[in-house]
Amino acid sequence: MKQSKMLIPTLREMPSDASVISHALMLRAGYVRQISAGSYTYLPLANRVIEKIKTIIREEFDAIGAVEMLAPAMITSELWKESGRYETYGDDLFKLKNSEGTEFIMGPTHEETLTAIVRDSVKSYKQLPLTLYQIQAKYRNEKRPRNGLLRTREFIMKDSYSFHADDESLDQSYLDHKQAYENIFDRAGLDYKAIIGDGGAMGGKDSQEFMAITPDRTDLSHWVVLDKSVANFDELPEDVLEAIKAELLSWSVSGEDTIAYSSESDYAANLEMATDFYKPANKVLAQEELAKVETPNCKSIDEVAAFLGVDQTQTVKTLLLMADDEPVVALLVGNDQLNDVKLKNHLAAGVLEPATDAEAKAFFGADFGSLGPVGLPEGTRIVADRRVKDVANVVVGANEDGYHLTGVNPERDFTAEYVDLREVREGEPSPDGKGVLKFARGIEIGHIFKLGTRYTESMNGLVLDENGRAIPMIMGCYGIGVSRLLSAVLEQHARLFVNKTPKGEYRYAWGINFPKELAPYDVHVVEVNSKDEASNAVTATIEASLQKAGYQVLTDDRNERVGVKFSDSDLIGLPIRVTVGKKAAEGIVEVKIKATGDTIEVHTDSLIETLTILTKQ
Amino acid sequence: MKQSKMLIPTLREMPSDASVISHALMLRAGYVRQISAGSYTYLPLANRVIEKIKTIIREEFDAIGAVEMLAPAMITSELWKESGRYETYGDDLFKLKNSEGTEFIMGPTHEETLTAIVRDSVKSYKQLPLTLYQIQAKYRNEKRPRNGLLRTREFIMKDSYSFHADDESLDQSYLDHKQAYENIFDRAGLDYKAIIGDGGAMGGKDSQEFMAITPDRTDLSHWVVLDKSVANFDELPEDVLEAIKAELLSWSVSGEDTIAYSSESDYAANLEMATDFYKPANKVLAQEELAKVETPNCKSIDEVAAFLGVDQTQTVKTLLLMADDEPVVALLVGNDQLNDVKLKNHLAAGVLEPATDAEAKAFFGADFGSLGPVGLPEGTRIVADRRVKDVANVVVGANEDGYHLTGVNPERDFTAEYVDLREVREGEPSPDGKGVLKFARGIEIGHIFKLGTRYTESMNGLVLDENGRAIPMIMGCYGIGVSRLLSAVLEQHARLFVNKTPKGEYRYAWGINFPKELAPYDVHVVEVNSKDEASNAVTATIEASLQKAGYQVLTDDRNERVGVKFSDSDLIGLPIRVTVGKKAAEGIVEVKIKATGDTIEVHTDSLIETLTILTKQ
Repeated sequence: MKQSKMLIPTLREMPSDASVISHALMLRAGYVRQISAGSYTYLPLANRVIEKIKTIIREEFDAIGAVEMLAPAMITSELWKESGRYETYGDDLFKLKNSEGTEFIMGPTHEETLTAIVRDSVKSYKQLPLTLYQIQAKYRNEKRPRNGLLRTREFIMKDSYSFHADDESLDQSYLDHKQAYENIFDRAGLDYKAIIGDGGAMGGKDSQEFMAITPDRTDLSHWVVLDKSVANFDELPEDVLEAIKAELLSWSVSGEDTIAYSSESDYAANLEMATDFYKPANKVLAQEELAKVETPNCKSIDEVAAFLGVDQTQTVKTLLLMADDEPVVALLVGNDQLNDVKLKNHLAAGVLEPATDAEAKAFFGADFGSLGPVGLPEGTRIVADRRVKDVANVVVGANEDGYHLTGVNPERDFTAEYVDLREVREGEPSPDGKGVLKFARGIEIGHIFKLGTRYTESMNGLVLDENGRAIPMIMGCYGIGVSRLLSAVLEQHARLFVNKTPKGEYRYAWGINFPKELAPYDVHVVEVNSKDEASNAVTATIEASLQKAGYQVLTDDRNERVGVKFSDSDLIGLPIRVTVGKKAAEGIVEVKIKATGDTIEVHTDSLIETLTILTKQ
Repeated sequence: MKQSKMLIPTLREMPSDASVISHALMLRAGYVRQISAGSYTYLPLANRVIEKIKTIIREEFDAIGAVEMLAPAMITSELWKESGRYETYGDDLFKLKNSEGTEFIMGPTHEETLTAIVRDSVKSYKQLPLTLYQIQAKYRNEKRPRNGLLRTREFIMKDSYSFHADDESLDQSYLDHKQAYENIFDRAGLDYKAIIGDGGAMGGKDSQEFMAITPDRTDLSHWVVLDKSVANFDELPEDVLEAIKAELLSWSVSGEDTIAYSSESDYAANLEMATDFYKPANKVLAQEELAKVETPNCKSIDEVAAFLGVDQTQTVKTLLLMADDEPVVALLVGNDQLNDVKLKNHLAAGVLEPATDAEAKAFFGADFGSLGPVGLPEGTRIVADRRVKDVANVVVGANEDGYHLTGVNPERDFTAEYVDLREVREGEPSPDGKGVLKFARGIEIGHIFKLGTRYTESMNGLVLDENGRAIPMIMGCYGIGVSRLLSAVLEQHARLFVNKTPKGEYRYAWGINFPKELAPYDVHVVEVNSKDEASNAVTATIEASLQKAGYQVLTDDRNERVGVKFSDSDLIGLPIRVTVGKKAAEGIVEVKIKATGDTIEVHTDSLIETLTILTKQ
């Protein structure tokens, strides 16, 4: 393809309105343009990447026996009223009405549509299992669209739905999807983790999220590619190195979720779902007497522990929360932090909020800082982290401003429900006992979920089982954020290209090192002088031989300065650059492998052979 | 692909709510399902056809140097306010508002978006020409969605837009598109005509519509495929033949436009745009005296001509119309019919309506039937068909009930603007003098249009020309109805399959004979007994060898009666059926070519070779 026929509007500078590198680069490299807040056009380069992602998805989905179809994106509101989601989905749902008053929504997801289609066609367990998928635009009325393709109002999703007569069949489909997802993300060149998601009431094992890991911004070996003009990092002067480090740190870390993962095992979970390494501890035998002590001006656990001269682990923190407007007392050991999601899931609460000062005062008769679980009114719901059960003779607030109780013992002095409530900390042991927990930010790129009968029950999606009995079909649903994948890939494959000018100055510039299977083209042929006839002839020759060998070729045939062409080539980010320069007349061109900065001069006759060798490394 | 894993919900009967054959068959053969009025899900088979159409479009568009991209389907209303179309587009436009009050439309077309993108990135004539295309869902709030995919609220379009600095470049792109369209429709197996469209004020040469021709329902050789059990049409008993003819005639003719085309040349036009074969005639020299004659009870041209004993061509019919609320008199020779569109275009009128009885009475002082052009008030706008200029001594209404004038002569007795106003009739000479005009109904499948500067002027889409002067870019826009193409293909490739049962009864049943490049799979392997191991083994062998030879295979592995399988196979409509039946154990299978009904038994070893020969015929 001739670059002059493409629309690749690269920018000379980083756009000022982008705070994450993937967003900035996809604008600067001419991949996308914003039309309005959260609404992007995929320009020709991005469209090619999206199509390649789709192809990979189709290949891997065909391999697990899934079948592609396509439902309308605009959905009659009737279907969503049947499932009940029309009213409950919230403001994120784009609703519209035509001039005759018929109501529609723009689908954020298609459980209702697929359930309706399958229920109307499938009547017997013999026609199951069935896995259907589609790749299409989805809609969500984001309040704050941001970060390029990471949070948009219109986005491309692969969504699939499986239908089963029994749980074993669903389990198999769930595993098949997991395998397909791993293949897809591997082929997309992504560093990702399958984590235990916030499956809510469904329980963790029935839901997994695939998170692309945001690279550590202090890892120079990841981010920086040295040109052949720079021997190694040691060569770089301190001020250049500092400038590079500052440049890397100047970009916001993308990824809206923090992931806790084991340094040594497969364990990985959303921070909100990560459990701690817990073994019930032996209690001391002798329980002390309960005593009330004055603790003037002690508001925090730190202050109380210091004042009383005890370890923080010898204190229990008391919180008051309102769960669907009912008060709930939560207890944690010392400075452990409450994980709201765990408590909310345990309570199966719709809304969970911290109580106000006034609510706490009214409930305990004391201010925050002196709250405690002892002597609360009968019927008070107290939920404690499981570690609280193992403490003895601890300090708690006395429910009287300026006083705490010492020698407090669970069960003797208060009772509670003991569950996993605490938020894990980086560096503590992994819950499986293997390695320690590390934290990273992640971008959700996929989700697999055992949906069960939520939709088939509400929408009458019944089939006859082996005994002729009508049962609701069991469903799984599975998503991949196709357009968001492009952002995730750029977040991981953005690079700082460093070179030394002939005058000895070090320069660095952002660019992309696209993974092989997703690059919009395989090879960027750059004509240094597009008006030179010898150069044109060589270019035509190598274009033909590259295409014959199966390479997709983009040729920069523009009448631009070579500096502009090289800079654009780094931005566009194809894996291989072939420069047709001064030695073109002798049949010599320069090959550069983007990932490594390796550069070599080759005769056009041996170009294909050289590429075969270089790209196999 | 195993049929048991697909969702192909064939129906035993023709659906009662479909009146055109393509709609009925796409439902019955399990290709699509309606979700709500004008909203269809493409089930797996239809999705494959749609993807094949997309592939063909991409190949042919790449060949003309067009570049694919993808703009959002949901468009900020701001862009449409810039062009002015937000207010003028009409009720067909789906408008929506999010909960914050931001307004969007669901795009029916993307001139504004593309103009905005290109204007922001392209600053110089040197960056032109540029041709961009996309394939995506479009939206139109159809008042009366109908006929399956022919008129829906959400549909798939290929839309392309070309941008130019001069007219010559636009002309080239227009021709390139025409060639690409012809290639695409040829590959899609369509019988179509490129016609002169209703380009309105732009003039015919700047706009062409591609119309798929609805087959003549009396052409048995087109519709009927005889099974090997039936030797020829002559064998069919009269009552069977009559039943078949009645079946064909029971389906409505699809296609909303009538096309007039030459029996011998390339001439083809929308009926509304078709011109007649016209040569100015020699007038008789002697002009008669004007005379008023009584014509009691003569209301029509027929009655007047009969009463006065003259040929209809010796009369001129007078009509009154209201063009944007202004009266306009239209004149036609004898029983020639007015073509409203021609008159409307000539007047450049927004609304053109027939006058009411009261309006005519008030204007002429007489009722319809006695109207005439003689003695009308000064300033009356009279538009006559050009043939009126050539008549002499004709009869017209006297503007007095019950009277006509004879001996009327144009120019002497009235003056008029002479233009092409009459509607052509089937059988009259083609305007190019080659052959006669034939009529057919057509389905619009594509449109190419020289748009000019309509959008670049209103949206400030300027570039610098060679002299550094800012000029608006010149645009072309071009559309193909991708989903509607499926309906057009089925309209042309629906077939009545006729066979004779072993008991000697003749049966006919609807099915599809898919064109090769669009069929969802190439070969339908039908296992007569899916529980038979020998049969399974042979099936596996031929599946493997077919796939190796590049055929896409659908295997009916369902545990169904063979009658059901054959009937479904005819409905699904793949070009080749391979039946694995009783002789499977001997390695013998039956090959049937759908288009011809040819059937042959072959050994699995020579299957590929046989197919190669048969499909080359």
